[in-house]
Amino acid sequence: MVGYAFMGRVHSQAWRSAAAFFDLPLRPVMAALSGRDAARVTAAAAKLGWAAVETDWKDLVHRDDVQLVDVCTPGDSHAEIAIAALEAGRHVLCEKPLANTVAEAEAMAEAAGRARARGVRSMVGFNYRRVPALAYARELVRAGRLGQIRHVRAQYLQDWIVDPAFPLVWRLRRERAGSGALGDIGAHIVDAAQYVTDDLLAGVSAITETFVRERPLPEGTGRGEVTVDDAALFIGRFRGGALASFEATRFAAGRKNALRLEVNGSLGSLAFDFESMNELWFHDHAGDAAEAGFRRILVTEPGHPYAGAWWPPGHALGYEHTFTHQAADLLQAVAAGADPLPSFADGLQVQRVLAAVEESAANESRWTPVPG
Amino acid sequence: MVGYAFMGRVHSQAWRSAAAFFDLPLRPVMAALSGRDAARVTAAAAKLGWAAVETDWKDLVHRDDVQLVDVCTPGDSHAEIAIAALEAGRHVLCEKPLANTVAEAEAMAEAAGRARARGVRSMVGFNYRRVPALAYARELVRAGRLGQIRHVRAQYLQDWIVDPAFPLVWRLRRERAGSGALGDIGAHIVDAAQYVTDDLLAGVSAITETFVRERPLPEGTGRGEVTVDDAALFIGRFRGGALASFEATRFAAGRKNALRLEVNGSLGSLAFDFESMNELWFHDHAGDAAEAGFRRILVTEPGHPYAGAWWPPGHALGYEHTFTHQAADLLQAVAAGADPLPSFADGLQVQRVLAAVEESAANESRWTPVPG
Amino acid sequence: MVGYAFMGRVHSQAWRSAAAFFDLPLRPVMAALSGRDAARVTAAAAKLGWAAVETDWKDLVHRDDVQLVDVCTPGDSHAEIAIAALEAGRHVLCEKPLANTVAEAEAMAEAAGRARARGVRSMVGFNYRRVPALAYARELVRAGRLGQIRHVRAQYLQDWIVDPAFPLVWRLRRERAGSGALGDIGAHIVDAAQYVTDDLLAGVSAITETFVRERPLPEGTGRGEVTVDDAALFIGRFRGGALASFEATRFAAGRKNALRLEVNGSLGSLAFDFESMNELWFHDHAGDAAEAGFRRILVTEPGHPYAGAWWPPGHALGYEHTFTHQAADLLQAVAAGADPLPSFADGLQVQRVLAAVEESAANESRWTPVPG
Amino acid sequence: MVGYAFMGRVHSQAWRSAAAFFDLPLRPVMAALSGRDAARVTAAAAKLGWAAVETDWKDLVHRDDVQLVDVCTPGDSHAEIAIAALEAGRHVLCEKPLANTVAEAEAMAEAAGRARARGVRSMVGFNYRRVPALAYARELVRAGRLGQIRHVRAQYLQDWIVDPAFPLVWRLRRERAGSGALGDIGAHIVDAAQYVTDDLLAGVSAITETFVRERPLPEGTGRGEVTVDDAALFIGRFRGGALASFEATRFAAGRKNALRLEVNGSLGSLAFDFESMNELWFHDHAGDAAEAGFRRILVTEPGHPYAGAWWPPGHALGYEHTFTHQAADLLQAVAAGADPLPSFADGLQVQRVLAAVEESAANESRWTPVPG
Repeated sequence: MVGYAFMGRVHSQAWRSAAAFFDLPLRPVMAALSGRDAARVTAAAAKLGWAAVETDWKDLVHRDDVQLVDVCTPGDSHAEIAIAALEAGRHVLCEKPLANTVAEAEAMAEAAGRARARGVRSMVGFNYRRVPALAYARELVRAGRLGQIRHVRAQYLQDWIVDPAFPLVWRLRRERAGSGALGDIGAHIVDAAQYVTDDLLAGVSAITETFVRERPLPEGTGRGEVTVDDAALFIGRFRGGALASFEATRFAAGRKNALRLEVNGSLGSLAFDFESMNELWFHDHAGDAAEAGFRRILVTEPGHPYAGAWWPPGHALGYEHTFTHQAADLLQAVAAGADPLPSFADGLQVQRVLAAVEESAANESRWTPVPG
Repeated sequence: MVGYAFMGRVHSQAWRSAAAFFDLPLRPVMAALSGRDAARVTAAAAKLGWAAVETDWKDLVHRDDVQLVDVCTPGDSHAEIAIAALEAGRHVLCEKPLANTVAEAEAMAEAAGRARARGVRSMVGFNYRRVPALAYARELVRAGRLGQIRHVRAQYLQDWIVDPAFPLVWRLRRERAGSGALGDIGAHIVDAAQYVTDDLLAGVSAITETFVRERPLPEGTGRGEVTVDDAALFIGRFRGGALASFEATRFAAGRKNALRLEVNGSLGSLAFDFESMNELWFHDHAGDAAEAGFRRILVTEPGHPYAGAWWPPGHALGYEHTFTHQAADLLQAVAAGADPLPSFADGLQVQRVLAAVEESAANESRWTPVPG
Repeated sequence: MVGYAFMGRVHSQAWRSAAAFFDLPLRPVMAALSGRDAARVTAAAAKLGWAAVETDWKDLVHRDDVQLVDVCTPGDSHAEIAIAALEAGRHVLCEKPLANTVAEAEAMAEAAGRARARGVRSMVGFNYRRVPALAYARELVRAGRLGQIRHVRAQYLQDWIVDPAFPLVWRLRRERAGSGALGDIGAHIVDAAQYVTDDLLAGVSAITETFVRERPLPEGTGRGEVTVDDAALFIGRFRGGALASFEATRFAAGRKNALRLEVNGSLGSLAFDFESMNELWFHDHAGDAAEAGFRRILVTEPGHPYAGAWWPPGHALGYEHTFTHQAADLLQAVAAGADPLPSFADGLQVQRVLAAVEESAANESRWTPVPG
Repeated sequence: MVGYAFMGRVHSQAWRSAAAFFDLPLRPVMAALSGRDAARVTAAAAKLGWAAVETDWKDLVHRDDVQLVDVCTPGDSHAEIAIAALEAGRHVLCEKPLANTVAEAEAMAEAAGRARARGVRSMVGFNYRRVPALAYARELVRAGRLGQIRHVRAQYLQDWIVDPAFPLVWRLRRERAGSGALGDIGAHIVDAAQYVTDDLLAGVSAITETFVRERPLPEGTGRGEVTVDDAALFIGRFRGGALASFEATRFAAGRKNALRLEVNGSLGSLAFDFESMNELWFHDHAGDAAEAGFRRILVTEPGHPYAGAWWPPGHALGYEHTFTHQAADLLQAVAAGADPLPSFADGLQVQRVLAAVEESAANESRWTPVPG
């Protein structure tokens, strides 16, 4: 694994836990962790349970005991690391967004295609697909329970930089993060909405904004410019005809991690909020109107995706479980010689949506088709 | 009162009830009801409690015992009736949207201005301003409890025409209704959002859609074309800098009358859903983060707008009460020689927002400023 | 009508509104209002819309233009007024609790029986039966949708006397009110639970408590003793075998009018909270567990009890509507020569439950059967 | 660890994870797992991550590499195993309920006292104390934010045996489980309510019921008698004067793991439902009534108990984390030479409450004091 900050911690927990709950043909061994600072990476490896450390990710990628590389670094290094790992014949799990630019993402998708021909697998880490409630939502859509989809309403609301005194961390600098709320959390709702509806965005009209344009530097004194968006809003149309509304922001005071999705179809509707991640709200429009209403399904039943591997009904899963599910699915795909999803191509498509959003926002919100 | 369908019924209940709960300087007398069909208007007057009937609204407007005309007809007749009533020196309450076009609305606002100079009052019926929770929301905003407003999220979701077999009623025909979801319910969220935030929309980028383009005619056989929008979505910016997202639709299966508003500011946030109309959710961002959260305020306390006139705390008000509050406020303004709000000028401004939405939607979603 | 305080105000609104929304064979005329203080009753009659006043309820009862007497006084005068009215051949609507003692309630039920033989009708005002959600809940139970009922969980939580400085109003004095939370709000949940489940309590085990034993007198200076319960809790069994838990309190800080009912059966469950009075939560246990969950039914559909008389789906009703429904049902029964429900006999049975609760609480919580 | 069923699986995850998230002075080593069936315990150890296996728990207790014994068996073997382990100088974590009888629990508490004198620690596994929301609830109570506590309302609702065809598993047999819903889930709400309020139950009045008295045997054919309660309800008083209502049932259709607690005090109230385990609802009764309401606190902030060790705000924890917190706290206590809580004495006190419930239920619900 490369990187050991927030994503590294949760990925470690996933690798540590997957085999205890899922019947896996391959048992993960946490071979080595890479980071530039020797002392810090050593401490992290001890705490997170990695057997060895490397201070250069290139060495990690080429270790004999490494068969899969998990890329948990900021977006500006994804392309280089992932492509090198794929070329070295290592399977790759790469955190989202796949890259900071469409060009990088294209190169990665091409590398993934070449590697695939040699049996080397790749996956991009849109972990929210593995929330049981969202995986079950997709099942309901694919079973036709929503009928013709008319509306998609997606929001990802956070509030961690509402305070103008919050420092200029790497996520607020374009050269590291690519974009702001758009790439960080907007990418998640684009993927989640497309995944649940089994459809793709055809075009968008967008606005973006940076509310606080200067912030204190994280170390030392002085202030620096915020070079990414604080919020991005767009409306759009899916290929299948649904209208869509998306909003990603870090300025929604009181909303901590509100990834919300509502889908309305001719036969039913779904609603979800990650702040209550074990619940899916489903309205069945096909029956008697007097009995109809949004029902709160606790997605913890044996018949729900992933849930049967864990605890009895009503015993909640948490954020980290989505990564454990991701790890389990990836290992099963690798063992089966199958392609795990979402692929790098899926990650590239999301990147193209994000690029269309930025293009529209820069161009008087004009309608901008998503290529592909 | 002119008209006795849905709006006429609820306005009647308001006129009947206002004086029993509010201390009014003027006591309303329900003098006469107007409608074209003599038998039906007579039956309606008997049931709704009106003392006399007229089959021509012009006669009603000029009756000696009529001092205030309440216009409850479809939008295509608002301008003619309201202007005639104002010119006849009658105070006017006109249902929203003020008119079907900006030109009509401008003529009405001008007539209202002329009448005002003669002490004749006018008001447009955006009843949702008189939901206690929304009136209280505005108080919180004006008291600075939300700080700098960053985001407005407004939706008005209904589902009464999801079924393609639903007939082509007058609300689905442009010549009667002006527009579809946009003017009917979109107008309400535009007004409500501007009212609560005490700010105005500066510009928009929009899409609209008619999902079901032909429907059975309401009487007899055959089918006709739907000439209004089924749904309208737009993003925008307020003059004060807030980003906004609006959605009005009649295709949100399971949402019956979900007028939802969420406002995020630098010091706090508000959320409201008319389906739970006695509740306002308020997040105070100024205090200790460990204790913070959206609190469910039951807006039924004596200290809340309008609520003290009714029942003890926790005893819900309903939809019709918003009209009773409107009637009481109008009577108080008339007695005081003051201008009731929202004025026809306010109604015109909302009309301009709707027109900008339609213009943007017709023009590749391009950014379209709201004049004025 | 006798009395014009809280109950008088809401009953007046019911009489004023019923005929405008329900097709009634009899149209109520608000003939006369009675109260001891001439000035105050005159002002109340003007405001509430009563045509005449009486300062002695005996005169009201015998007026020629009075055919129905609505008793809205405190419980200590219910028996005397209601019996006199019945004997004078007036139909009677009597607020709950029917009386302050079982003996009084028995006398009233006997008087009602005698009057009934002469075609004179009587009804006790358990208005919560006419919440559409609770009436619909009963329909679901009677249709077998819950199967064998196992559990009833009923609470009525208020908080208006949490503050020890709140004065010693008449509701806190046994000689006026009969009991405290028990008779005032406990009576409502006993009736509501029995009504929804279509079953009766067989026995109870109870505790009661007066947390604040002395309070300031409402007028002048000094303090007086609180002679009623602040809270009453009991567990019990229904005749059909369900276990039950009841709690009535005025000390639940933050709960304003939380009449809550949850019923669990072998095939389904129901949950209700009057603080969200337009919602009924229904869990259908008969289907696929993966799709099951409590659904939030907005009880505002044309197919729901009472709702069709009012507004389109999703347009909330409020507290007062339960009284309007009660008035409409009573007038329909009178016109039809039928007995309205709940009868005085039903009111007596509730009184017996309350008496069993007090007996158990006074007797080491020992199991106490409910007679009858 | 002894036992590897449900509790064994979740305890294993706790031991595996604790050191990766908490800074622990001792790092747990998962030395050995014990179970009677050699093949099954070997497979479980491999899957759950235990280094060795024993088929006799006595051998496990005396292994040199075992310093702490985690007892995850049914209640009938708790006393024997825990006492043996303590006498062998091993620290002990014992699942709840501490024992099947008060006599066993007394013996265990005595053994724990003797062991403590030798520096050997013991803890009973009431894991719900380590739900961050409940730990934070206790902090609020202890900080005086609720004032004088008036009401405690506790329910633990499940539905896994609603179907009469559900088999006669060990939890439905008195000789293995001690009691039914009472000991299994009733024990949890007794502990949780006492923990949050920092007070103890003084006495109770109870009813219990077995709705389905015969069930199919789990293996083979035939039916057997259910010898435990399906549901237990009781009312009671806390030593500090609060009134309480408790209900534990496995027959609440649609409630999966609804451990609910509501506490009302003179200055505030709290509400919790484990089905939404990351939320605590807090009503502050001390401020302006117009602004007051139950606020939904997402208990995922750095300032909340345990939460800072995990993810950013709004990223949910799940059921298993309560066990990880328990493991971390136990290890910290052992390292510090301190007594972990809840102690075996605390477990014994809960057992006495359960015994009082059964005694009251067998004795006409008569008031039964809780000794001690």
